Amino acid sequence: MPRPVLHDYFRSSAAYRVRIALNLKGIDYTQHAVNLIRDGGEHLSDAYRAINPQARVPSLETADGDVLIQSPAILEWLEETHPTPPLLPAGTMARARIRAVAAIIACDIHPLNNLGVMGYLKGPLGCTQDAVNAWYAHWVYKGFSAIETLLRRAETSGPFAFGDLPTLADVYLVPQVFNARRFNVPLDAYPRIVAADAACADIPAFAKAHPSRQPDAV
Amino acid sequence: MPRPVLHDYFRSSAAYRVRIALNLKGIDYTQHAVNLIRDGGEHLSDAYRAINPQARVPSLETADGDVLIQSPAILEWLEETHPTPPLLPAGTMARARIRAVAAIIACDIHPLNNLGVMGYLKGPLGCTQDAVNAWYAHWVYKGFSAIETLLRRAETSGPFAFGDLPTLADVYLVPQVFNARRFNVPLDAYPRIVAADAACADIPAFAKAHPSRQPDAV
Repeated sequence: MPRPVLHDYFRSSAAYRVRIALNLKGIDYTQHAVNLIRDGGEHLSDAYRAINPQARVPSLETADGDVLIQSPAILEWLEETHPTPPLLPAGTMARARIRAVAAIIACDIHPLNNLGVMGYLKGPLGCTQDAVNAWYAHWVYKGFSAIETLLRRAETSGPFAFGDLPTLADVYLVPQVFNARRFNVPLDAYPRIVAADAACADIPAFAKAHPSRQPDAV
Repeated sequence: MPRPVLHDYFRSSAAYRVRIALNLKGIDYTQHAVNLIRDGGEHLSDAYRAINPQARVPSLETADGDVLIQSPAILEWLEETHPTPPLLPAGTMARARIRAVAAIIACDIHPLNNLGVMGYLKGPLGCTQDAVNAWYAHWVYKGFSAIETLLRRAETSGPFAFGDLPTLADVYLVPQVFNARRFNVPLDAYPRIVAADAACADIPAFAKAHPSRQPDAV
């Protein structure tokens, strides 16, 4: 049986999510690094666009040769096809709460702070690096404030976002916390988020997915 | 049995998605309009933040009094709790393809073009209306180009995004097409998207969810 191939980039937050999930599910995979910086971006090549017409990472080529794109879709597919261990609990309301945290990151923080957007701010809009940094921190603050409140209201014992097992919420949180730290965004106001991130760091599936441990890390 | 309450705003694209899905599922609901413009925004009130700490629409209060936030999470919850008629087919790969289209809109088009972002561009970044319009169109083009290719590659007979029944892809596409037209973004390059949107317009569940037909429309 051929192994699935993950087209990724060590620093891509969306690829990092999928690496964590693959590791948690115990799925063996091959990595194909797509360098988003070198030569103007390997993701923009015709060869990669044939795989992913959106020209983004990650893309997951399954053992059957099908191609999946968009991390939220890939993660739901992984949960459906490899249900053990689960990233979502059985109860529909608990699943909705966890997916809401994932969506705040996937929709309202990360897309505003990715490479393409920062390039548009610095290029066509002529923003200074200070203005870009303020923009970056603004969306992290807004999203993390809401998530911190949601985690507090959930009243689980922790240490993870929603209790004593990592869920899809942690899969999204850890890469976003990594990004925030990389851009020096202070996280003191979000103790529940920081605690969940720290708990995840002790789990090999999360540690192995860290950007610094990828073959293409520089 | 009390009816669920949808906290929405007629022009909110995310609320529009949920209205469509509720209508398609045949779920009767009460609307509570949250005016995002008047008095600096009713969504920012303490009363609304108690319901939704992210201070965004939509929020769905279930008949049991639970509150759901974030349209992607609400839509998955609706699919799990009211599976008929389905918004996702049975096959896991088909589901992943449909969710990928939904995610391109939910993550890579809509969040860059919502009220909060446009306010930041005009306010702190001092962008002109022309610069904001160019920004708006840029993200629609990039996302719709990828979706148009994905729909062509899927090779379904139409008329909907993925065949002869509306799916979650159409639930996301229709509000995004409405937004694009509102901002005068030309859609000639996306015939499959335009055709899916036209097919949906003939379905009462979609028509009834249109912004112009909401009680708070102005």
